[in-house]
Amino acid sequence: MLNIGHYSFSSRLLLGTGKYPDFKTQKEAVEVSGSEILTFAVRRMNIFEGSQPNFLEMLDLEKYTLLPNTAGAKTAEEAVRIAKLAKASGLCDMVKVEVIGCDKTLLPDPVETLKATEELLKEGFIVLPYTSDDVVLARRLEELGSHAIMPAASPIGSGQGIINPLYLKFIIEQTKVPVIVDAGIGSASDAMIAMELGADGVLLNTAVAGAKDPVKMALAMKMAVEAGKLGYEAGRIPRKETATASSPLEGLSVK
Amino acid sequence: MLNIGHYSFSSRLLLGTGKYPDFKTQKEAVEVSGSEILTFAVRRMNIFEGSQPNFLEMLDLEKYTLLPNTAGAKTAEEAVRIAKLAKASGLCDMVKVEVIGCDKTLLPDPVETLKATEELLKEGFIVLPYTSDDVVLARRLEELGSHAIMPAASPIGSGQGIINPLYLKFIIEQTKVPVIVDAGIGSASDAMIAMELGADGVLLNTAVAGAKDPVKMALAMKMAVEAGKLGYEAGRIPRKETATASSPLEGLSVK
Amino acid sequence: MLNIGHYSFSSRLLLGTGKYPDFKTQKEAVEVSGSEILTFAVRRMNIFEGSQPNFLEMLDLEKYTLLPNTAGAKTAEEAVRIAKLAKASGLCDMVKVEVIGCDKTLLPDPVETLKATEELLKEGFIVLPYTSDDVVLARRLEELGSHAIMPAASPIGSGQGIINPLYLKFIIEQTKVPVIVDAGIGSASDAMIAMELGADGVLLNTAVAGAKDPVKMALAMKMAVEAGKLGYEAGRIPRKETATASSPLEGLSVK
Amino acid sequence: MLNIGHYSFSSRLLLGTGKYPDFKTQKEAVEVSGSEILTFAVRRMNIFEGSQPNFLEMLDLEKYTLLPNTAGAKTAEEAVRIAKLAKASGLCDMVKVEVIGCDKTLLPDPVETLKATEELLKEGFIVLPYTSDDVVLARRLEELGSHAIMPAASPIGSGQGIINPLYLKFIIEQTKVPVIVDAGIGSASDAMIAMELGADGVLLNTAVAGAKDPVKMALAMKMAVEAGKLGYEAGRIPRKETATASSPLEGLSVK
Repeated sequence: MLNIGHYSFSSRLLLGTGKYPDFKTQKEAVEVSGSEILTFAVRRMNIFEGSQPNFLEMLDLEKYTLLPNTAGAKTAEEAVRIAKLAKASGLCDMVKVEVIGCDKTLLPDPVETLKATEELLKEGFIVLPYTSDDVVLARRLEELGSHAIMPAASPIGSGQGIINPLYLKFIIEQTKVPVIVDAGIGSASDAMIAMELGADGVLLNTAVAGAKDPVKMALAMKMAVEAGKLGYEAGRIPRKETATASSPLEGLSVK
Repeated sequence: MLNIGHYSFSSRLLLGTGKYPDFKTQKEAVEVSGSEILTFAVRRMNIFEGSQPNFLEMLDLEKYTLLPNTAGAKTAEEAVRIAKLAKASGLCDMVKVEVIGCDKTLLPDPVETLKATEELLKEGFIVLPYTSDDVVLARRLEELGSHAIMPAASPIGSGQGIINPLYLKFIIEQTKVPVIVDAGIGSASDAMIAMELGADGVLLNTAVAGAKDPVKMALAMKMAVEAGKLGYEAGRIPRKETATASSPLEGLSVK
Repeated sequence: MLNIGHYSFSSRLLLGTGKYPDFKTQKEAVEVSGSEILTFAVRRMNIFEGSQPNFLEMLDLEKYTLLPNTAGAKTAEEAVRIAKLAKASGLCDMVKVEVIGCDKTLLPDPVETLKATEELLKEGFIVLPYTSDDVVLARRLEELGSHAIMPAASPIGSGQGIINPLYLKFIIEQTKVPVIVDAGIGSASDAMIAMELGADGVLLNTAVAGAKDPVKMALAMKMAVEAGKLGYEAGRIPRKETATASSPLEGLSVK
Repeated sequence: MLNIGHYSFSSRLLLGTGKYPDFKTQKEAVEVSGSEILTFAVRRMNIFEGSQPNFLEMLDLEKYTLLPNTAGAKTAEEAVRIAKLAKASGLCDMVKVEVIGCDKTLLPDPVETLKATEELLKEGFIVLPYTSDDVVLARRLEELGSHAIMPAASPIGSGQGIINPLYLKFIIEQTKVPVIVDAGIGSASDAMIAMELGADGVLLNTAVAGAKDPVKMALAMKMAVEAGKLGYEAGRIPRKETATASSPLEGLSVK
């Protein structure tokens, strides 16, 4: 089980809700993925105005836990404001803190992320900060009391996968709360590698929403995350530079 | 379906039979893996002498297709002799041609592999040659009439995974018969990446047999191969150097 | 020229002064390297007590600019104290801020590094902060007024080279002051790649001091940094997936 | 010294002669590179017809050893014919055997390369076969008596650099004659890495001819090859997963 704050989830795949070709595909992809946690940009969702269609309305909200994110915030203050709006809607008490510090890379601002995390923790939120793969920053975020740490595999939407598996591994090893690898996942094997490194979950959006067949990719992702967890637990063989026979033949007679 | 010669298989995971800690674990791993094709070193199996225990005897041979390999052969002549021994046993009409040209790397000898493949095809075998990732060699092997091509991901038992995805991709793109990535797989994500590149199957042994928990790893591999196939079919997003917002926020009012 | 604060250097290779087998080798390596900037741990150097041998005493200090670092500091306060000790010695007005946040990875603490950098800039130091490859953190350090930014290629002494060339490239592109890649360099090609990415300089220590032949490696590093700068300026060819003939042969008759 | 057949060279950088923007740039790049061996496509050069301009005529041929290649050959027979044409011109007794087996990847045909190499060795040529990085194929080519082995780093003109350093390393370790890494070099660091792996030389063309500033890139390549050789000899530090302090501080008092 993936335990975050007072929640428990069987699925370790978290899905974003942006950029799907249409609501029907999105709904099907979400169902197939087995995800129990859906993230959405508070500023994007029309939760405050009924005039426009809204994907969340189409969902059976009994089945999903919503994880609003503060996408669009560039300061801690903005992130806190957005998080409070989300909470006020009554839909959720969790928040993914996302404070972008660079428009080109969409990588997070460490200082503002720390501030927003601290403030929202004080306010009683269940806080999951989105962070770079800075090892010590992840530690500071955990020390503040974050309920999970969400390091980026690579820039949001880039599909570059895990650029720096070493730093992710360091973060995973040092962190006692769940580590959910977030952003940059391009293929199902990227999600699997995150889990094989020991991550507790993976959050992705574009890799499914932007695939040629989002529903099929959602299934691939579900299986990849589950298989990656199994692979981590099963304990892989060490890498060796040279070869080792699968079936050693010393002393055998037939030749 | 994976079609090789006159055979059709639902599973795309081929398992070797060497180096398991014990027969019970092996049997369970094989069952969990869903594999329908088991490869074994002819020289290793005690199919010719009843005095020693034999894993194959423990299997319900109705459920599995045996793929004997010519491990131990260093010349085409030896490989042909070993293949004929296997066929004479009545267990199989397929053979994986494996002619090692280097004791340190266990990489195959291109010239002897070509010769053995040609000879065994003439003799009516269903032939699956184990080869390096040399792109033109793979083409020559296909032109001879091979029923599948088995390029190495990296040295046997090394667990290094796919060192050269580009050459594997070239081989997969040019080959009309099945391409089964063979040797070097270390983790379940390695197997998945092979499938995401478009491979038709994956053969591995040490990655399961040598894992801390072979049965759990066998399940991870089964799922990885299936998920990799799905991921290939689903069409992944392109890699981009810079980021792209999951939920574009232009023109939105809440801030 | 590499311009840092009021200094100008022709060499873009900065050398550390730790872990050499002996002072004679060290002196020769430093000379051969062409380095003009030598970094040293203030806490390590016996600049405050004359009883022990001291490599700095062996140098013609007219030829080198000293760059004391605050290695050993775990807080901004400690780093500031160490920097002031170094300045009080009269040897230097530059300082490399190094505040370690993790004993295992020796990766820097972003918060304390920011604090120490801010404080030392106020005190009039020429400040070069050692940082992770967090893109936004590097920007924040530049905004404070840092005279150069020193992102880590990989953990200190690990010899892993540049794990994340993308983030280094982002940092180089956004930064107006010099970017000096620091820590993790293992081979001369690692230093060269840093320069090909557009870095202004490279700082390394173990890669030379720990080489089998430190003097020869120092020369390799000098050439690698120079060649890398040239290679960056010369503008490399793009990467292509498929091949392009060096000598196109269309329409030629001899065959 | 790089010894190939009865030749000895101080430079370890071999240059191709195709695709330069103009002869003047080419001449300057060649001079700056320090190369002593120039390769050219026999079929491309107008050595047999005086009507068109010819780069070779512009060179002081006392200073360079020509290495004609059989580019354009798709069979051993064609390669042998081209090589004989080159020898008949009196310009050279060396030949780079290049028999392409795939128009898309320009990767060599192992069988035809072996045949052509064998035939040309019998004819008394100094033979340098261009080969994939197939480890056993390289061994077979050496056993025939080749005077050097030229494995590809990646497809010709692709600029992908060294895709499979492991196989190159295996080839270098097993080969007693010179190993010259050929094809695929994109940046000066690629050339350097080849030398750091222990190669005896590097052959490249597009990486210089296609650079924005070919003359500057030629100099970068010259330095990279020399520095790579030094780096190899100097013995690099091992890679470690975790960090090691440059200046250990245990037991030091200043804090």
